[in-house]
Amino acid sequence: MAGNSFGKIYQLTSFGESHGEALGGVVDGCPAGVKLDVEMIQHELDRRRPGQSRIATPRNESDRVEILSGVFEGVTTGMPIAFIVRNENQRSKDYSNIKDIFRPSHADFTWYSKYGIRDYRGGGRSSAREHIARVVAGAIAKQVLSEFGIAITAYTTQIGDIYFDEYDYIPTSVDIEQSMVRCPNEEVSDRMVDLIEECRAERDSIGGVVKCCITGVPVGLGEPVFDRCQALLAHAMLSINAAKGFEYGEGFRAASMRGSEHNDPFIDGNGSIRTFTNHSGGIQGGVTNGETILFNVAFKPVATIAREQNSVNINGEPVKFTAQGRHDPCVVPRAVPVVEAMAAMVILDLLLQARTNKV
Amino acid sequence: MAGNSFGKIYQLTSFGESHGEALGGVVDGCPAGVKLDVEMIQHELDRRRPGQSRIATPRNESDRVEILSGVFEGVTTGMPIAFIVRNENQRSKDYSNIKDIFRPSHADFTWYSKYGIRDYRGGGRSSAREHIARVVAGAIAKQVLSEFGIAITAYTTQIGDIYFDEYDYIPTSVDIEQSMVRCPNEEVSDRMVDLIEECRAERDSIGGVVKCCITGVPVGLGEPVFDRCQALLAHAMLSINAAKGFEYGEGFRAASMRGSEHNDPFIDGNGSIRTFTNHSGGIQGGVTNGETILFNVAFKPVATIAREQNSVNINGEPVKFTAQGRHDPCVVPRAVPVVEAMAAMVILDLLLQARTNKV
Amino acid sequence: MAGNSFGKIYQLTSFGESHGEALGGVVDGCPAGVKLDVEMIQHELDRRRPGQSRIATPRNESDRVEILSGVFEGVTTGMPIAFIVRNENQRSKDYSNIKDIFRPSHADFTWYSKYGIRDYRGGGRSSAREHIARVVAGAIAKQVLSEFGIAITAYTTQIGDIYFDEYDYIPTSVDIEQSMVRCPNEEVSDRMVDLIEECRAERDSIGGVVKCCITGVPVGLGEPVFDRCQALLAHAMLSINAAKGFEYGEGFRAASMRGSEHNDPFIDGNGSIRTFTNHSGGIQGGVTNGETILFNVAFKPVATIAREQNSVNINGEPVKFTAQGRHDPCVVPRAVPVVEAMAAMVILDLLLQARTNKV
Amino acid sequence: MAGNSFGKIYQLTSFGESHGEALGGVVDGCPAGVKLDVEMIQHELDRRRPGQSRIATPRNESDRVEILSGVFEGVTTGMPIAFIVRNENQRSKDYSNIKDIFRPSHADFTWYSKYGIRDYRGGGRSSAREHIARVVAGAIAKQVLSEFGIAITAYTTQIGDIYFDEYDYIPTSVDIEQSMVRCPNEEVSDRMVDLIEECRAERDSIGGVVKCCITGVPVGLGEPVFDRCQALLAHAMLSINAAKGFEYGEGFRAASMRGSEHNDPFIDGNGSIRTFTNHSGGIQGGVTNGETILFNVAFKPVATIAREQNSVNINGEPVKFTAQGRHDPCVVPRAVPVVEAMAAMVILDLLLQARTNKV
Repeated sequence: MAGNSFGKIYQLTSFGESHGEALGGVVDGCPAGVKLDVEMIQHELDRRRPGQSRIATPRNESDRVEILSGVFEGVTTGMPIAFIVRNENQRSKDYSNIKDIFRPSHADFTWYSKYGIRDYRGGGRSSAREHIARVVAGAIAKQVLSEFGIAITAYTTQIGDIYFDEYDYIPTSVDIEQSMVRCPNEEVSDRMVDLIEECRAERDSIGGVVKCCITGVPVGLGEPVFDRCQALLAHAMLSINAAKGFEYGEGFRAASMRGSEHNDPFIDGNGSIRTFTNHSGGIQGGVTNGETILFNVAFKPVATIAREQNSVNINGEPVKFTAQGRHDPCVVPRAVPVVEAMAAMVILDLLLQARTNKV
Repeated sequence: MAGNSFGKIYQLTSFGESHGEALGGVVDGCPAGVKLDVEMIQHELDRRRPGQSRIATPRNESDRVEILSGVFEGVTTGMPIAFIVRNENQRSKDYSNIKDIFRPSHADFTWYSKYGIRDYRGGGRSSAREHIARVVAGAIAKQVLSEFGIAITAYTTQIGDIYFDEYDYIPTSVDIEQSMVRCPNEEVSDRMVDLIEECRAERDSIGGVVKCCITGVPVGLGEPVFDRCQALLAHAMLSINAAKGFEYGEGFRAASMRGSEHNDPFIDGNGSIRTFTNHSGGIQGGVTNGETILFNVAFKPVATIAREQNSVNINGEPVKFTAQGRHDPCVVPRAVPVVEAMAAMVILDLLLQARTNKV
Repeated sequence: MAGNSFGKIYQLTSFGESHGEALGGVVDGCPAGVKLDVEMIQHELDRRRPGQSRIATPRNESDRVEILSGVFEGVTTGMPIAFIVRNENQRSKDYSNIKDIFRPSHADFTWYSKYGIRDYRGGGRSSAREHIARVVAGAIAKQVLSEFGIAITAYTTQIGDIYFDEYDYIPTSVDIEQSMVRCPNEEVSDRMVDLIEECRAERDSIGGVVKCCITGVPVGLGEPVFDRCQALLAHAMLSINAAKGFEYGEGFRAASMRGSEHNDPFIDGNGSIRTFTNHSGGIQGGVTNGETILFNVAFKPVATIAREQNSVNINGEPVKFTAQGRHDPCVVPRAVPVVEAMAAMVILDLLLQARTNKV
Repeated sequence: MAGNSFGKIYQLTSFGESHGEALGGVVDGCPAGVKLDVEMIQHELDRRRPGQSRIATPRNESDRVEILSGVFEGVTTGMPIAFIVRNENQRSKDYSNIKDIFRPSHADFTWYSKYGIRDYRGGGRSSAREHIARVVAGAIAKQVLSEFGIAITAYTTQIGDIYFDEYDYIPTSVDIEQSMVRCPNEEVSDRMVDLIEECRAERDSIGGVVKCCITGVPVGLGEPVFDRCQALLAHAMLSINAAKGFEYGEGFRAASMRGSEHNDPFIDGNGSIRTFTNHSGGIQGGVTNGETILFNVAFKPVATIAREQNSVNINGEPVKFTAQGRHDPCVVPRAVPVVEAMAAMVILDLLLQARTNKV
């Protein structure tokens, strides 16, 4: 399987460049018989779209999704679901200032070296606009999962040094969406917004952390030994632009814990087996145990900053580089729906695979 | 591809249970023409083997690897390399005490629910003895990589609350191996040993962190957008028993950094393009940039502790459970060669894939 | 990998229904740096298009391909190449006569049973219009292969009981294309045309055979033991609508041959090793030997005939069914470019894989 | 997935050389909960073993299978099932006569060119002894399939110019196994035996055809558009040593048939939908229709003959070559269980995949 496909049974193949004709994808392996709500897909895309608030980049694209196949009379047919989002005004810009320059901490240098050619317009395919395909495929997956009572909720828990982290708190989507930074605590959210504004004013950018909670997951998802649930989630999350780390359950904190503290005692949960605590984050032995899946994803500060930086051109000669235009000083809020989308794809894929475990 | 295979071109298929006939694996896609040093493979296995020091479990197994195919007159032929390690005395033990019990934070409950059957002897395939296959496949990969000047070095940077972390320090293997906990700083190592002894005395266990450094990596490894180098490394690391988190470069620390701080300026490195700093951890845009790859893996405290714990039996009824026998209070030192092995497989796989990038 | 993707390195993911919004595909793994001739792609599509001659169905669609990604300034970038062909007038037709009927020897019954839903408009995705994606992906593959001196030529060797088969004859494309049935021998071609006309007049259809010759193939393509060159070609060919058989080299005739007759003696071919005969059809031990690859694909008569047939409806009740509209009485001539396209994809995929065989 | 693995959910990874330590394989994805009969597996291996009758090579190896993992108390656990067959006396032979020679129509030349090295002992991995892994994996698959009422029966229908072919005749295994050539018609079988003896006397070899019938298959197996049931069967069959062709249903004969003749009318089969005829061979639109699957596989005469042949050595210089030792003059009878095994793997894999088709 080539590098632009993700998943084994429920599989997304993604395509498109930031300033090409269109971005899009093909979802193969979506089970037949699902009533698909296209408005919900568009809604998820809108959550990722730039220009949603004063702290995000004002690039204004409608990003309308068009479904090309795999749906008949509103219901999935089991055939591949192809979709595209046209890029608008993609030819208008002038990229002469970055054409021959490798922007620091971008994909410019590595991709050019790898392929011997690079579509420099807006970063080409290395742009986070590629996430559009993920959000659409994830929105479809979410709709399938909802038929099984599985729900996915992500939110911002950290921007710079400002934290909101209650280990297993699951806010409502209203709480999350009313915050410009998708942090459900209003007071913390306000401070995060202030920090982002401050970074923008300083022509700088800032990182953060997204937490994701998955509820309603049945026992038994995850394919030992290499496709453990957490391994696929980690793969999915680290494939997102700017992601730098993944941890589930207690994560890195577990490194300083003792077994007596970290172990989750089993209890009789009124007929079903439950755990008294959930340090494991919903996964044990690589397989879901029916508790809420909990994980965090760390994001770096975006590389594009409106300051002069040292760099080199494609001949390796030193140059000074200053990014033009306006850019998000923090990608974390817009990464929230992408994290959810990738999580949805992983869980649905494992749900389908688990049907083959027993004779 | 089923869950017991890892890799696309260089692919390991792993098999075996802790107390079955044998553990082993098949490496497919190893390039032909590599002179294979079987003693080096055995040496790597020995590094993972229990009973190496007074802080590790004294279970004494020779764990001798036998190569069954794919090597002719000491050289790889391009054919699959199968290998086995026989389990010794695997029938001698009595498992009646865990046969019907789900041990807390083990795979017992989830795997039994998933498959409707479970090999309870020593945890069956959920045992960390499965790592044997990874270490062998990784040792072969290391030998191939060494022909390209690529070297992989992992070591312990944290046990409980005791840290040794210099961001991009690469110790010698002598420094690492002379420490019982594989921490190259003697003073820190001593304190880590003391902490582990303390945990053992308290019938408890403790977690930790392993850092991995990969040097000599050419520019261009990683397959956007889903098989980015870090995504495959994360997948690999989170598939290791007891791993709870992965981060590369600055990792979670990047969440509180600013772009102006985190960006790596490009410089002219005497004809080749280098970066002045390496906050990126050797990977930009999902593709290696020629700098040292740096990542961390967090491990939880092992679930097996010699204390009485609450749990349930397979009927969901509450029981008290106390683990028998002696077990490692900390898996981190023995996880070091496993981290290296998985990293070697990922990098070799990407090295081979990169040969197909250009016409 | 789901069922709508083909290939390991050079991979097509196909989508679309006969009367949906669009058909298309995504080619991932195409090497960067290939100058792509879009007119050549359109030309290949035109060869498959209906309405090319008086013996083909007169459905008149322009079938214009639109490339959406993966090409920058006319050159492949290594990124996925997505393309679509819009369906025209797809909403105009009335399908009430087949909505609830399972047409004999079509996919109607099996797909409906499998998925519980079916897009009955023009056969939905089971229509041969799906081949459009293959022809485009094959045309791109052909352009890459031509940089290595590899050429693919298919032609019609049998329609009904009329044969033209000279074992290893490779006609020019002019000879092939000037024949309405793509048979390079004018006299045989004329008789084939007459037979097809006769079948049409009798409201019947007729089968045939396509031969394919691949020249310029280097020694060493094919991945033992399961992905032998012939195994992938067979997979590719039997995935084409209406294909019923595949044979390479002497094929089924080899069953009645003796070893002394069938073996190909090696000879010194002016410095390179050649075979004196080519009964093997260019592949030995599953790997190409540098001689011309030769294979045949058998096609059944198309299932759609303008006669009344017995069938059942979706409730299993007996019905009489007569196909409406005009249809090709013979798909073989239009299958020729599809055979070539699938062959091109297989050979390119193996060419790229072979780069990983040696250290 | 590398070239020595076959299947998507039910996956065999095969390894081993003719004269290495052992041959074997790993079956991953076998559903848990199947009671496994090891004697039946050994019985299938015995059917493939040389030296079964006076017309087969007298090489006498016990070929005892040893199961290493994945089975606990006689039941599959869902874990990978590894197995090996030790090679006996593999070091005794002298191969100096073929060490530097490329035997005509063998894999010697192509594999040596591909990998730059070759295990010349008995053909190394290109030997048909590799089929051992397939037979074991197929025997396991057969046992799973039998729980669903699916049975697979193959037999010899042609040796040289001697035919026994009744389109959809399904003989009993007793009828087949009492024939030295596995042809259920005693009179035809006798003539086939005579022909093989004649070939042996003339130091020559002869080809043939195997027919395979699969009964009890549910409607709905096959994954359009590339993994149609027939495409996977063709892939499987053409991956067998010496196979030259595959056809299903009417196969190549369909090329000369008319649609009115070839179409299978649907009928009401007492509540289930059936077809009146079965020209389609149990598959329509790439998906099984519940009728018996019927296909044929053509095999070439084995390349090893005890006559002097022209060839070249590894330097490309002309040499005379005469094979030493005794060899089967016809592989077809021993290919019968291999055909069945590969078919079983394909059908089981599709059976498991089909569980994911609907929500």
